[in-house]
Amino acid sequence: MSDRSWWGWGTNAAAVVGAEAEALVDRVASLVPGHDLTDHEPPDPRSLPVSASRVSPPAALAGLASDDVVDRLGHARGKSFRDVARNLAGDVGHVPDLVVRPRSEQDVVDVLDWCTRDAIAVVPYGGGSTVVAGVEPRFDGPVITLDMERLDQVLEIDTTSRAARIQAGVYGPALEDQLRPHSLTLRHFPQSFEFSTLGGWLATRAGGHFATLYTHIDDLTESLRVVTPAGVSESLRLPGSGAGPSPDRMFLGSEGALGVITEAWMRLQDRPRWKSTVSVAFDDFGKAVAGTRAIAQAGLYPTNCRLLDSGEAFLSAGTAVAGGLLVLAFESADHPVDAWLARALEIAAGHGGTVVGKVENTDAGAARASDGGAAGAWKSTFIRMPYQRDALARRSMILETFETACTWDRFEALHAAVMATAQEAIADICGGNGILTCRFTHVYPDGPAPYYGIYAAGSWGDSVAQWDEIKAAVSEVLTAHGATITHHHAVGRDHRPWYDRQRPDLFASALLAAKGTLDPAGILNPGIIV
Amino acid sequence: MSDRSWWGWGTNAAAVVGAEAEALVDRVASLVPGHDLTDHEPPDPRSLPVSASRVSPPAALAGLASDDVVDRLGHARGKSFRDVARNLAGDVGHVPDLVVRPRSEQDVVDVLDWCTRDAIAVVPYGGGSTVVAGVEPRFDGPVITLDMERLDQVLEIDTTSRAARIQAGVYGPALEDQLRPHSLTLRHFPQSFEFSTLGGWLATRAGGHFATLYTHIDDLTESLRVVTPAGVSESLRLPGSGAGPSPDRMFLGSEGALGVITEAWMRLQDRPRWKSTVSVAFDDFGKAVAGTRAIAQAGLYPTNCRLLDSGEAFLSAGTAVAGGLLVLAFESADHPVDAWLARALEIAAGHGGTVVGKVENTDAGAARASDGGAAGAWKSTFIRMPYQRDALARRSMILETFETACTWDRFEALHAAVMATAQEAIADICGGNGILTCRFTHVYPDGPAPYYGIYAAGSWGDSVAQWDEIKAAVSEVLTAHGATITHHHAVGRDHRPWYDRQRPDLFASALLAAKGTLDPAGILNPGIIV
Repeated sequence: MSDRSWWGWGTNAAAVVGAEAEALVDRVASLVPGHDLTDHEPPDPRSLPVSASRVSPPAALAGLASDDVVDRLGHARGKSFRDVARNLAGDVGHVPDLVVRPRSEQDVVDVLDWCTRDAIAVVPYGGGSTVVAGVEPRFDGPVITLDMERLDQVLEIDTTSRAARIQAGVYGPALEDQLRPHSLTLRHFPQSFEFSTLGGWLATRAGGHFATLYTHIDDLTESLRVVTPAGVSESLRLPGSGAGPSPDRMFLGSEGALGVITEAWMRLQDRPRWKSTVSVAFDDFGKAVAGTRAIAQAGLYPTNCRLLDSGEAFLSAGTAVAGGLLVLAFESADHPVDAWLARALEIAAGHGGTVVGKVENTDAGAARASDGGAAGAWKSTFIRMPYQRDALARRSMILETFETACTWDRFEALHAAVMATAQEAIADICGGNGILTCRFTHVYPDGPAPYYGIYAAGSWGDSVAQWDEIKAAVSEVLTAHGATITHHHAVGRDHRPWYDRQRPDLFASALLAAKGTLDPAGILNPGIIV
Repeated sequence: MSDRSWWGWGTNAAAVVGAEAEALVDRVASLVPGHDLTDHEPPDPRSLPVSASRVSPPAALAGLASDDVVDRLGHARGKSFRDVARNLAGDVGHVPDLVVRPRSEQDVVDVLDWCTRDAIAVVPYGGGSTVVAGVEPRFDGPVITLDMERLDQVLEIDTTSRAARIQAGVYGPALEDQLRPHSLTLRHFPQSFEFSTLGGWLATRAGGHFATLYTHIDDLTESLRVVTPAGVSESLRLPGSGAGPSPDRMFLGSEGALGVITEAWMRLQDRPRWKSTVSVAFDDFGKAVAGTRAIAQAGLYPTNCRLLDSGEAFLSAGTAVAGGLLVLAFESADHPVDAWLARALEIAAGHGGTVVGKVENTDAGAARASDGGAAGAWKSTFIRMPYQRDALARRSMILETFETACTWDRFEALHAAVMATAQEAIADICGGNGILTCRFTHVYPDGPAPYYGIYAAGSWGDSVAQWDEIKAAVSEVLTAHGATITHHHAVGRDHRPWYDRQRPDLFASALLAAKGTLDPAGILNPGIIV
């Protein structure tokens, strides 16, 4: 991955430039009139004041370690707006002393032994796509980043049970490439898919692209193998078990604070053959929410059930609707999904929903390539969005998202409060020059996962502080309404203050005690979780 | 529940007596010819050598406590075969010094404070239906049993999100009675339903009656409220969250060792309206397994997908099949399920399955009452079985079950080894006079949960030791094949030796550390889990 951007999303080659950049800037100029869209080039990383590495690896591990400044800078932060904006400003904060890339599990063991002995902090690193500062060594003292990218193999496939033993460092596309010849898929497609790893998904309880059922990485996990400073933990490979509290659920979401996940047996699926997608328009957002809830509670389990509010529908799917646009899809590897879709559309119609365009039906192995219409427009925006975000961050725009989940009964009040607070913050902080959108990324029978997008005119040099102020305001609203500080972006360092208030104190004590047994020297990702 | 049997299952009034007992004995006599079926009456509990209580509650708690001998004996054990057989033999083991019945959460807090102060062990107790000695104080020293039955109210119902806040001590029927007026159901029906509680289901990760999807109590849990000696822990009520490791998953399956669950917000469902049930016969067990697997992997999510081997089909459903009988059902509160069932039957037919009788369709609120045919016969046996077990235990029969889960690729070898080992044990220990059956209670895309039943001719006075020998032999086989020691019966004290070998050692250390923070005096259910 030599072409990876050190300061922003993905690869340098895929950056938004030329005509694409011009079109984007033109579009944004009309949305935030009067905003200064001067382009600020990223600094030359070799010109930045990065301290020399304070750490020397033992001879046996020296071949795994890199002290290259650009490598270190590229691993110092994740890919949130505030990470990108700080990088663009040449604001060098904490940078790991070394990037260490183990080639084997034994290398991981040896690195943890060395770092425990020498009191060096270790930040486990997957694809570095965190938007919550999960990999940023925001503390003093020596620290290495443990980049797992070389542990990238599917080691074993069980086609009978549809499961595979997979090394944690594999990136999404390479993982799917290794499963495809077996007609299997993990079918876990977070927005970060191209630049995130299995281990990262597991450590952060990633949400996946699909709206219902088997989409969370937690539910796709059969067993985990984890290296901790105290030794290696491996759970039995089981489809289900009631033997005590789940060992895997302790490591899922532990964000590198309890151990380094090296391998997992993951549940796979047959590659979908039938797929039907359609968009449904609503006049009224409240009715759209009610219709979406009814579908979520009907036991139909759509693949997508993604409600976009009118702003999101316009910006991302190019569709003008008064209330909301519900992107609805069903997929199956086993059977046509007509009966399922028909019933979902009946429910939507009962809440005032009108089909936009026609149902797109696919009966082929290549279902994923066929998206058209509003759903397709939405998907291409989804993949391209982080690159656009970077292009606009260079032009002083604040583009960021925040997400949560709550029960259906609380959504209306929560949503009203979030919208009011965020709009007020945009007014106060950005002179009102901004847009706020909402969509549901996931729907459960008992509640939605709302996801908000902010597009606001920042001021060059101040945009990080401006965003922090907006983010703090909305995080307070989430907390006051009993909504989670994160549904699938994880806690990291940025969500920690609210996480600490939302989490039961006794569970925090229990986790801290657990960490004490697994990582007695406290070297693993200090500041994370406990 | 004044009519509860102190020595066996359920109520005294529902015991198998008279003509039902005669018919049962006749049937068994033909299955285990030559077995001595002499009936042994249970002893008068007041004649048993139960030590006087060593514990005096503080005055403020005295009104909650009972030192009645029959009450204490009734709480000393669960309802496994070995519990019942020991009771019938008048073998008094460890008996709690007091049974304490809190009326409020504050009572629970006060009891834990008192017991922490005075170093008295506390066994949290739901319905006492454990078959793994989860409530048996198998240790010396003073101990009270904390019977939660008075905390039996549904406190709050959120019909929008379909969820309710429920006190943990409520029994299954009383819980459903309180939800029914709202057209809602928890839809969690373990075999113990009538004599088990919400808190017990949560503490033991109960499996529920249904074969796929939302059947495990884990997945029905929105949030938990738990009283520990260190304080009260309450999680946020959320449909989903990715904020660190799940707090609820630490308490789910903790079997009373980490705290006393007092309340939970539980996910509910609309009461099913459409239901279709049919049985499918297979000539060959291997083909039946393959067909069941294909249905489990098709994304159809049947309510039941219960494969009975020929012995189980004959004994429990009264149906003679050469290979296996698949009881297949679909239910919905929202839509007819014809399309789902039709596709499942197509898959079954592709594996040589033949429909037995006709599809039973129900379109009514009273779906549950309508079962007929093999499926209905199976269900009535299922409910009546524990009473029959008691009647036969009085007649020196060993009737017990064990259950597990494994991935599909391992099932064939595991099953062959379990059957061979158990049959050999029956031959060695019971002179070959016995029957062994298998069914799947749950099926997952990646594996089944096989459940085995043993009906063997024991010897009066020796049947507990005989069963223990059989159980140890099959537990070794499960462990050798990487299958879990328990899929839904929990660990308790009886499974502990194998659980300790199957669980990652580092997870055991982490749990022990967690317990140290929540229960520093170690009073909660000593010997359980850690």
